[in-house]
Amino acid sequence: MKEPIIIGIAGGTGSGKSTLVQEIAAEFKDDSVCMLSHDYYYKAHDDMPFEQRCKLNYDHPNAYDTDMLIEHLQLLKQGITVHRPVYDFADHNRAKEVVEVQPAKVIIVEGILIFADETLRSLFDIKLFVDTDADVRILRRILRDVEERGRTLESVVTQYLTTVKPMHEQFVEPSKKYADIIIPEGGRNYVALSMVSHRIRSLLREE
Amino acid sequence: MKEPIIIGIAGGTGSGKSTLVQEIAAEFKDDSVCMLSHDYYYKAHDDMPFEQRCKLNYDHPNAYDTDMLIEHLQLLKQGITVHRPVYDFADHNRAKEVVEVQPAKVIIVEGILIFADETLRSLFDIKLFVDTDADVRILRRILRDVEERGRTLESVVTQYLTTVKPMHEQFVEPSKKYADIIIPEGGRNYVALSMVSHRIRSLLREE
Repeated sequence: MKEPIIIGIAGGTGSGKSTLVQEIAAEFKDDSVCMLSHDYYYKAHDDMPFEQRCKLNYDHPNAYDTDMLIEHLQLLKQGITVHRPVYDFADHNRAKEVVEVQPAKVIIVEGILIFADETLRSLFDIKLFVDTDADVRILRRILRDVEERGRTLESVVTQYLTTVKPMHEQFVEPSKKYADIIIPEGGRNYVALSMVSHRIRSLLREE
Repeated sequence: MKEPIIIGIAGGTGSGKSTLVQEIAAEFKDDSVCMLSHDYYYKAHDDMPFEQRCKLNYDHPNAYDTDMLIEHLQLLKQGITVHRPVYDFADHNRAKEVVEVQPAKVIIVEGILIFADETLRSLFDIKLFVDTDADVRILRRILRDVEERGRTLESVVTQYLTTVKPMHEQFVEPSKKYADIIIPEGGRNYVALSMVSHRIRSLLREE
């Protein structure tokens, strides 16, 4: 069996990264494509009280168990099924259950910081960065966090200014230079979506 | 016959735009793909002495006969052969001869300013912008103009600082926001090249 192709999709919060991934996933409903999010691999903090877990910086590379994601990708490349962790965003901790992920011909990995780690980055055959203006990104984040997740506007603004924005500028934005292709505006960019989908189709055919 | 697909490839001087176009053209040697450069359509200045032509600003949108390029693209879309002008860079003027361009299934148009004009921009089905750091671009331009075109370093630097750079910042860089896909580093970016080539192949198959 040919090694799977691994596609990394990075970009800041609210960039349209997840929409792009969903649009791609919708086109490949069979088991030829599987998807992993870096967020599934947020570190477990069973030893830490809830109040303290709330205050952690979830936008820093150290918040992630990137070594586990790397290990899982290396196993999937060898055709070995893995059990990925599940993250409970309400509890700010890793959940007890795991989800089985079977090897697929195309593996999509998404996350804001997946190009910031050299070893993880080296595993991607194609690196896409979804690039959207910071003002549009914060507006999307506000709508998502206030309307869908019930947070207060003030808490969203505070978190954005104290961790999201500085971490974006320190780690996410500089990792853009490793991208093979930059996609402006994310998931609603149908010309780019079509190009990525066709490339995946051609990779699936080549096998 | 189905209308041809028109792909625009823009980007600043030295971005690797032309290399990308050459790499694509090399993959499609048959007559299914044709290429037009905005530079072919530099305005004729038969009424102006050579000394004066040398001093024109060739990086401003007004230097181009964009209306003629638009007309030619509209004719090619209708399946009508056109005769494109030829520009003589040594004489800084339009040459006497013309070149026949036959309609093709895929038409590639390249130039620094092709996304700056709204009507021209609206003709592109796919808009690619080759994005390379300004320091890398000026180094490439120096090597090209000094080593290949026999210009002095001083003349290259003066032209860059007086027209190339200000026009880039005023017209080229802002037009990047219209791109569907941004390709870092141009022609040697084989992951991006492969994606574009596969998209063209799929468009040719769809006919």
